[in-house]
Amino acid sequence: MPSINENFLKLEKNYLFINIAKKVKAFTEAHPEADIIRMGIGDVTQPIAKCVVEAMKKGADEMGVKETFKGYEDSGAGYDFLKEAVAGYYKSFGVDIPADDIRINDGAKSDCGNIVDIFGDDNVVLITDPAYPVYVDTNLMNGRKVIYADSNEENNFAAMPDENVKCDIIYLCSPNNPTGSVYTKEQLKVWIDYAKKNNAIIIYDSAYEAFITEKDVPRSIFAVEGAKECAIEMCSLSKTAGFTGMRCGYTVIPHELVVKASDGSEVSIAQLWGRREGSKFNGVSYPVQCAAAAVFTEEGQKQTRANIEYYQNNAKVMASTLDELGIKYTGGKNSPYIWLKCPNNMGSWEFFDYLLENANVVGTPGAGFGKNGEGWFRLTAFGDKDRTVEAMERIKKLLSK
Amino acid sequence: MPSINENFLKLEKNYLFINIAKKVKAFTEAHPEADIIRMGIGDVTQPIAKCVVEAMKKGADEMGVKETFKGYEDSGAGYDFLKEAVAGYYKSFGVDIPADDIRINDGAKSDCGNIVDIFGDDNVVLITDPAYPVYVDTNLMNGRKVIYADSNEENNFAAMPDENVKCDIIYLCSPNNPTGSVYTKEQLKVWIDYAKKNNAIIIYDSAYEAFITEKDVPRSIFAVEGAKECAIEMCSLSKTAGFTGMRCGYTVIPHELVVKASDGSEVSIAQLWGRREGSKFNGVSYPVQCAAAAVFTEEGQKQTRANIEYYQNNAKVMASTLDELGIKYTGGKNSPYIWLKCPNNMGSWEFFDYLLENANVVGTPGAGFGKNGEGWFRLTAFGDKDRTVEAMERIKKLLSK
Repeated sequence: MPSINENFLKLEKNYLFINIAKKVKAFTEAHPEADIIRMGIGDVTQPIAKCVVEAMKKGADEMGVKETFKGYEDSGAGYDFLKEAVAGYYKSFGVDIPADDIRINDGAKSDCGNIVDIFGDDNVVLITDPAYPVYVDTNLMNGRKVIYADSNEENNFAAMPDENVKCDIIYLCSPNNPTGSVYTKEQLKVWIDYAKKNNAIIIYDSAYEAFITEKDVPRSIFAVEGAKECAIEMCSLSKTAGFTGMRCGYTVIPHELVVKASDGSEVSIAQLWGRREGSKFNGVSYPVQCAAAAVFTEEGQKQTRANIEYYQNNAKVMASTLDELGIKYTGGKNSPYIWLKCPNNMGSWEFFDYLLENANVVGTPGAGFGKNGEGWFRLTAFGDKDRTVEAMERIKKLLSK
Repeated sequence: MPSINENFLKLEKNYLFINIAKKVKAFTEAHPEADIIRMGIGDVTQPIAKCVVEAMKKGADEMGVKETFKGYEDSGAGYDFLKEAVAGYYKSFGVDIPADDIRINDGAKSDCGNIVDIFGDDNVVLITDPAYPVYVDTNLMNGRKVIYADSNEENNFAAMPDENVKCDIIYLCSPNNPTGSVYTKEQLKVWIDYAKKNNAIIIYDSAYEAFITEKDVPRSIFAVEGAKECAIEMCSLSKTAGFTGMRCGYTVIPHELVVKASDGSEVSIAQLWGRREGSKFNGVSYPVQCAAAAVFTEEGQKQTRANIEYYQNNAKVMASTLDELGIKYTGGKNSPYIWLKCPNNMGSWEFFDYLLENANVVGTPGAGFGKNGEGWFRLTAFGDKDRTVEAMERIKKLLSK
């Protein structure tokens, strides 16, 4: 009989958001009249920009004509036109990435989850806590030792390295999911120096970079000196351009990034990952790549930036409500997430129930992201403007009682 | 320093088709005037059916309007409309699959490569040889023991189980890539009985099922009694509907399929796979799913069947040329592949070079698919009709000298 990978049995049975969905469903069934506002899952609500839709339709048309039909992509790493568009995007905020160091994927989650395949199971993995559950779960699936760096109220939810701790792989996310906190250039330099001293690799998730507004907050780890010798960066069009249902992202593995195998030979991480992808991935749908490339055109940037500003305005509404109520929070400024301290010392799930029952607003309990999330709560700015205003009015009414 | 997964270093450095591409490139550079006909890689050439293109464009339009915009898919397993369309397709050839046992993916390669994640590394994996390199490589990446069942001239390239051999996981592919051979219902029943006796799971690749013409050749392993308790089936729209560049497929894991964990508890394979996908995959692009669903409409079936018949006619032209030349082959009848014995006792790569140099025709050396492929050669029927005729004329001229 086949043995199963028993590491799976040690995981939480359900992904966090499945548990939330179940709770909301139960509440709705008990209160069918309730007008629920969902600010839990980090999904966007604004439609795809018109020029992006048109580019996808043009790509679809090309697939219907023999002369322009596209079959398998030669490399599976993305068409040059898209890799060059992504390289151009990096250049627009001052970061030089050769197009060949970029691989196109079907969203950051796949690469973020699958990258573990190319590393040995004996690595020690350092993850900031709280964190996006995928970092933890995918390493536990391989039976790896995971240790945590605490992000908490004292450090403004921006964990810094502890020189006494040794590790091999580090996950960082800035702007952070769930806390909305960010690393400055100086802070990232400390992480890079720490990684280099430990010969560790940083897996840097920049999925929310498009929400950065402050100047000293880098939009890529590669904006910081020394990163190319120790970091992999993963980004996505999900939040940048509303691609949660379109599915396209990209991973940057600098050609400078090499490690030593046990026989002392140098191994390129990009080549190792390419070999993995060659056997397990066949590239992204051509019309989706056409749509993605349109995001990086002048018109595409104009249209997608308008959506981001829409969400940023929601975040402002949310932040000012919390300011008014005197509730402590991080995020909202360089991030679509607001991470707030549950009022009256409520626990995360307690506040979840309280808010659901009394304001019919759904958020995400911080405890679902790790131990340092207990007592905290995530709200997203990805909703409809009027509904966000309405949710904040309900919260204000409830909490200022 | 992070250790790498050193199993990667034991793999062939390049995927087979990369090596072929390099050889062809070198030849083209030396002979820029040569008019090369490519019959090597199994990629389709006919455009996507019009109604499928229109469905994708409609899906793209919906993404551009707030009221119809789609973000994350709730389950990541595919929209109900598509799962039900696939279930209906199965029903059209007499196989009952509940829609909930189907997961939509971005092509069979991903699931076929990633399914290894949910099994223990101590499993013994049985693969028929020759085989699609992905089965072997993805198991070697996890350090698993791979054993082979020989498909060869004696058994008409349809390996059958050896009762004296024990294994936990079995890969079968029918119609077979690369040999074009097929299993009859009776032969599959023998494999199913063998799997049940060994408590093994069969991973069944039916990517070429749409090419089956003979009545006693099942289009799904689930057409055979007992399969639901021991088999997973993977299929794709790549060859059925020309989706190699569109990227959509599906995996069927029957809810009946359970194994025992080491503590004796029963574990559902579908649930285990769902947990894996929940952390590492976010579903297929909505407009791609719209396109895929259109394939299974009456009009979609009519249009895509016309493409399959086009390729089947190519296969007939190829088969009759080989018949004329007295060259032995399998496939061509229920398959887009023709697997021929290299003439004059040439080795696979020797014949590759001979054909490339003297007829400017590119095929795939059988040796690239495993030891039993040595001395054999794969040609695909996925090309343009006129070019296929031209290639066969060149081969006839060359080999009847």
